[in-house]
Amino acid sequence: MRDTPYLAVDVDLLEANLAAMAEHARTLGLALRPHAKTHKSPEIARRQLARGAIGLTVATVGEAEVFAAAGVDDLFIAYPVWAEGERADRLRALASRSRVRVGADSIEGVRMLAAAVRAGRPGGAPLAIAIEIDSGHHRSGTAPDRAAEVALAAREAGLDVDGVFTFPGHSYGLEAASPAAGEEAAALGTARDALVASGIPCPVVSGGSTPSARAADGGVLTELRPGVYVFQDAQQWELGASDPGSIALTACATVVSRRAGVAVVDAGSKVLGADRAGFASGFGRLPDHPEARVVAVSEHHATIAFPAGAAVPPLGARLRVAPNHVCSAVNLADELVVLRAGAEVGTWPVAARGANT
Amino acid sequence: MRDTPYLAVDVDLLEANLAAMAEHARTLGLALRPHAKTHKSPEIARRQLARGAIGLTVATVGEAEVFAAAGVDDLFIAYPVWAEGERADRLRALASRSRVRVGADSIEGVRMLAAAVRAGRPGGAPLAIAIEIDSGHHRSGTAPDRAAEVALAAREAGLDVDGVFTFPGHSYGLEAASPAAGEEAAALGTARDALVASGIPCPVVSGGSTPSARAADGGVLTELRPGVYVFQDAQQWELGASDPGSIALTACATVVSRRAGVAVVDAGSKVLGADRAGFASGFGRLPDHPEARVVAVSEHHATIAFPAGAAVPPLGARLRVAPNHVCSAVNLADELVVLRAGAEVGTWPVAARGANT
Repeated sequence: MRDTPYLAVDVDLLEANLAAMAEHARTLGLALRPHAKTHKSPEIARRQLARGAIGLTVATVGEAEVFAAAGVDDLFIAYPVWAEGERADRLRALASRSRVRVGADSIEGVRMLAAAVRAGRPGGAPLAIAIEIDSGHHRSGTAPDRAAEVALAAREAGLDVDGVFTFPGHSYGLEAASPAAGEEAAALGTARDALVASGIPCPVVSGGSTPSARAADGGVLTELRPGVYVFQDAQQWELGASDPGSIALTACATVVSRRAGVAVVDAGSKVLGADRAGFASGFGRLPDHPEARVVAVSEHHATIAFPAGAAVPPLGARLRVAPNHVCSAVNLADELVVLRAGAEVGTWPVAARGANT
Repeated sequence: MRDTPYLAVDVDLLEANLAAMAEHARTLGLALRPHAKTHKSPEIARRQLARGAIGLTVATVGEAEVFAAAGVDDLFIAYPVWAEGERADRLRALASRSRVRVGADSIEGVRMLAAAVRAGRPGGAPLAIAIEIDSGHHRSGTAPDRAAEVALAAREAGLDVDGVFTFPGHSYGLEAASPAAGEEAAALGTARDALVASGIPCPVVSGGSTPSARAADGGVLTELRPGVYVFQDAQQWELGASDPGSIALTACATVVSRRAGVAVVDAGSKVLGADRAGFASGFGRLPDHPEARVVAVSEHHATIAFPAGAAVPPLGARLRVAPNHVCSAVNLADELVVLRAGAEVGTWPVAARGANT
C-alpha cells in the first residue's frame, strides 16, 4: 500500500472528461487546443491529441520545451512572453523545430519577440503572434480597440499575426460563466474586427476557460483552450461547472489526528495547494463526503470538519480530497498515480512540473 | 542573465537571520531546533547546526530521510506520524541510523509507532516520542490534560517519551504573537506537569513558531522550533515579526504587461504559492516598493498595483517579490539562486522539495 499523501487519477473518469470536451468543441465547430499547464503530462497530451485536439496551449517556454520534446509539434504559448536573454535563444530553438504561436499584448513585447527569432538566422525562425485581449479579467491583455496597434507592430517587425486570444478568468465566480463568455465573445469580436479593418487577417479567435467553455459562443470563437476539464476540481464543483462524480484527480490522504467532528489528514497545502477563491467553501472538497468541509490547511495538515451527527472517519482511514485548483496541486507532485477501477495500474510523470521560465 | 522567474537568497541577510535567532535562543537559555520544512536545504541546515542548533525539526519521514542522508543525526519529526506500511519500514530504517524523535497525539498512533520500530528487530530501534499538545491552534494535538494518557500508552508500548510539544499556529494574526506564546507556555506547562505527576519525566518542552519565538517564555520551554526566520517573508513583515530589510528570499520576476497603475510580472502562484492569510494585504510584498500591493495572482502572473502618482516599472524591469509564505514558495522550486551583494555566487538544491510522505 503506497504511502500517503499522493495524487491519484482515475483514468476512466479522465477519459470521460476528455471525450466530453472533445465532443463539445466538435458540436460547436471549434478547434480544441487544451491548456497543458493543468496536467503537465505527455501521457495526457497524447490522449487529448488522439481525440482531435489540434495542438496544445502552454503557459511558458519551459512547458513548450517539455511538450515539444515529447513530440507535440503545434504549441501556443498563451502568455505575453518577454523574449530576452536565454529565453530568446530557447524560443528561437523551439520555433525552429515546432509550430509555435506566442502571445503578446505590447508593442515592446512583439519587438523583443521579433528580435529573438531573427537573431543569428537569415529570415528568422517562423513564429506566429496572437494578440492578447483583456475581456474583463484585468490581468494581461490589451483593450480590444488597441489590438490592431500591437498587431501592426508585429507585422512591421516581420512576424506573422494569426489572431487574437483572451482568458476570461472572471468566469471563476458564482453565476459568472455565462456573462464572462458573453464579454469574451464581445471583446474578441471587437479585436478581430479591428485587425481586419487594419488589413490584418485574423483566422484565430481563441478563448475559453473550463467554466466558460460550456457557454462559449461558436459564432465568434474559432478555438477553445480549457485546461482544468481533464481532471475537474473542487472549484469547478462549487461553480457548478462539474459534478463530484466527474472529478478524476484526488489526493489520497490518511487521517492522522481526530477529535469530535474533526478529522485531520496528511495532505496539506504542499499537496493540495493553498488556493482559495472568494467563492470557495473551504480548501478542497471530499467527493465521498460532500457534507464535509476542509476548514483549514497548513503545509502537511488539512483539517476537515464533519457536520453534527455525521460519523468522523477513524484514525488511519484513507480519504480522497479534491484540490480546490487542480493545476496547483499537480505542479506540486513529481508523478500521478494512475487508477483503473480503484486499482493502481501505473504512474505518469508530471514532466513539466516547475517549468516556470 | 538568468531567465525569470526564480527564487534568490541573499546569503548575508540569511546569515544575519540565522545569527539573530541563535543569539535569541541562547539568551533565553533554550535549545534551538529549527524547522527545516522552510528551506529543505542541507546547505542551510549545516549553517544552522554550525551556529549551535542541537538538531533539526522536520514535518515528514521523507524530509527526515533527506536530512539524515545529508549527515544530520538528530531529527524531530514534529508530526503525528501514522506508521503503517512502507512508512513504518522507512521510519525503522531511519531510527536505526539517526537519533529520531516523533510526535504523537493518540494512543492508536503510539501503538502503530511502537509496532513499526519493533518489527523484525529484537528490542526494536530506538525512537523517542513527544506528545503533541493543542495550545489553541486547533489543528492536531491532545488537550493538555490528556497528554499523560498518550504518554503512558507510549511507555506501555515500549517507547521512550522525552517530552511535549506544540505549534502555536494561532500566533499568525495581528497582535497575536504574545497571547499565543502565553497560551503555548500554559498548555505545555500543564501537559508537562501531567506527565511528571504520572511518573513520566519530561525533559523536553518544545514550542515556538517564528512570530511567537520572540515572545517565548524561557520559564517553561526548553526548545524552540521556528522555521520561517531563516528567510522571513511578507507574512512576517505584515505581522511585524520582521522588517522588509530582513527578507532574505525573494522571487525575481520580469514585468511582462503594464497599464495605468499596474505592472504584471511573471511570478505567479506556481512560484510564490497561493497562500493568503486573513491578515495579509495581498499575495506577496515588494521590499523595494513597500507601497505596492500584489492584488492578484494566477499561475504565471502577479498583478501589482501601485498607488496613484507612483511610477510603474517599465516592461522588462526585474522586480523582487517576497512570497507571503516562504515555505510554500521554496517547495515549488528545484533550486535557490544564491546572491552575495547582488551577484550570483551559486545555487543550492531544494533537496527535500516534495518530500511529503
